Amino acid sequence: MSTIEHVVQAIEPLDHASMEAAASRQQQLTKPAGSLGRLETLSIQLAGIQSTARPATERKRLILAAADHGVAANGVSSYPQDVTAQMVRNFLAGGAAVNVLARHAGLDLTIVDAGMVRPLEPSPQLKVVRFGPGTRNIATGPAMSREIAEATVLAGIALAQEAASDAEILAVGEMGIANTTSAAAVVSCLSGRSPAETTDRGASRTDQELAAKVAVVQQAIAVNDPDRSDGLDVLRSVGGFEIGVLAGVMIGAAASRTPIILDGAITAASALIAQALAPLSANYMIAGHRSVERGHAVALRQLGLVPLLDLDLRLGEGSGAVLALGLVDAAAACLNEMATFSEAGVSDQTSAP
Amino acid sequence: MSTIEHVVQAIEPLDHASMEAAASRQQQLTKPAGSLGRLETLSIQLAGIQSTARPATERKRLILAAADHGVAANGVSSYPQDVTAQMVRNFLAGGAAVNVLARHAGLDLTIVDAGMVRPLEPSPQLKVVRFGPGTRNIATGPAMSREIAEATVLAGIALAQEAASDAEILAVGEMGIANTTSAAAVVSCLSGRSPAETTDRGASRTDQELAAKVAVVQQAIAVNDPDRSDGLDVLRSVGGFEIGVLAGVMIGAAASRTPIILDGAITAASALIAQALAPLSANYMIAGHRSVERGHAVALRQLGLVPLLDLDLRLGEGSGAVLALGLVDAAAACLNEMATFSEAGVSDQTSAP
Repeated sequence: MSTIEHVVQAIEPLDHASMEAAASRQQQLTKPAGSLGRLETLSIQLAGIQSTARPATERKRLILAAADHGVAANGVSSYPQDVTAQMVRNFLAGGAAVNVLARHAGLDLTIVDAGMVRPLEPSPQLKVVRFGPGTRNIATGPAMSREIAEATVLAGIALAQEAASDAEILAVGEMGIANTTSAAAVVSCLSGRSPAETTDRGASRTDQELAAKVAVVQQAIAVNDPDRSDGLDVLRSVGGFEIGVLAGVMIGAAASRTPIILDGAITAASALIAQALAPLSANYMIAGHRSVERGHAVALRQLGLVPLLDLDLRLGEGSGAVLALGLVDAAAACLNEMATFSEAGVSDQTSAP
Repeated sequence: MSTIEHVVQAIEPLDHASMEAAASRQQQLTKPAGSLGRLETLSIQLAGIQSTARPATERKRLILAAADHGVAANGVSSYPQDVTAQMVRNFLAGGAAVNVLARHAGLDLTIVDAGMVRPLEPSPQLKVVRFGPGTRNIATGPAMSREIAEATVLAGIALAQEAASDAEILAVGEMGIANTTSAAAVVSCLSGRSPAETTDRGASRTDQELAAKVAVVQQAIAVNDPDRSDGLDVLRSVGGFEIGVLAGVMIGAAASRTPIILDGAITAASALIAQALAPLSANYMIAGHRSVERGHAVALRQLGLVPLLDLDLRLGEGSGAVLALGLVDAAAACLNEMATFSEAGVSDQTSAP
């Protein structure tokens, strides 16, 4: 794991001088101090991440990783496993929610096959970094070997570094039938909360299906008994290829001083792995939204992140991250483009009688 | 009030056939049913408002009304009253938060002088519908005559009808030093909640200033004792010119089957007046956000609206409405542009084993 560690050690704390400069500028803009609420704190975080008082979010890219999960065999999803590949074809054809949202928000998409059951036909938009034909069934043994777990994270780091050479801000999304089961197991392991508190119905339909899914998550943790202090061991035991790749994307983004917007419960599980491997990486993350998946709120608390949106979303794909990007853009734009009191000839609060 | 009543009677219920058609299409789009959460319900509301299964939100306009308030003489704001006009100049020059946000969201702005202390120099972007040099001080008597109250609403209706001849969606914003005091009084009158529950510090600074502001709101209601069943009497007694104009904008939008996005506590006070005059108008409203102003949450509950955003904003100007517009746009775009299961060759949930 020498290479991951090398990247982890390159992650710096946020730049407090830039944050102070941004905060000071916020005080001079033509509005009551603090009246833009979370847009102001967000703009200051962006300044600290990018190490500039004038952060930029013009060039944006979403990294959407897809993979299959052996645990789908346990009937934890009401969709057939083929839907992973079918939806990736839909992403490539531009027909999914995330495509519509990304077009409207001006994002470029990188779609990653991290290991679906069968490879897709090649496509210029598709990055193939396959780590197998889906993970093994976590209900009966580890999802993958430690070497593969490490390789998924390294692949994600490389994807982030390539993306960050152009994009000023990144977002993440995922697709994988049954990956809410894997994510719940990861969140349980890394938050210490029970599977009943981290498992939600995802695309499963009934209370019985949910109870069965909780039991599968419990079984996966019991069978594998991962070392909870070791993010890679958790990933290897109960994770997924896309979950590992996206954890790597988050570490790579932090090492590249690039803000990264999280999506739903699965990307939050990736974020917990990234945090376990690289605690400073959480400072570079922005929680796009809180989904209705109950494990998501658990993970966000563990990450110390407050979501920007709360719209009862539970789609994944990066949909919530892309929606939130509009707010992040707005935060940077207000900081950069608003007039100051003196520029606009507006009386400051201090000039009140 | 014959003309207002005429417009009010032209407001129809939402078109349920279009709502059902939109809901049915949502079921066929490539995502688990309901997984886009509030974006789905929003798209269905838009369909009902515009009376089409494929609502459009491309052409957007913000109507931003400004006016002064005699109650500023009571020291309820920590900004000098001149700031109303200074900020309107800032809006005309493009330097305020709302300008930055509107540029990024692709909105056109209509800026309305509804009655500032002094008229501004003419500007092509400025609509002048002045009803006086600010309202009279509500702490000592009515803000305006009943004739003027009616005229502000009619002016708003005309502004909305003109805007809706081109724009497919409208948003509202306001500016007026001391208008949080007037808004709190309106919200108290129309919600039955006490001034302590509807008054927040706005741009005032200390706990003492807040207590003094609550006392002013109490005094304004006691002195004027408006007929709480009569929206125009409440407006006349404790309202403001911009509050009346924006209530009219909301009624006009509803009569034109145009969705209208609310901003903060002051526009919510306008919405309560619109609802009092035209109960069906609330169906055409979308609550952009919930601000930190406590009266805002009270008003939204009374309107039966759930805010889209909750970002600790307290600026006004339409800033929260414009931020929310990105989500409304996204809701319409997903409904209109996503592929269906059959178009994309994706297996529906029903095809699961």
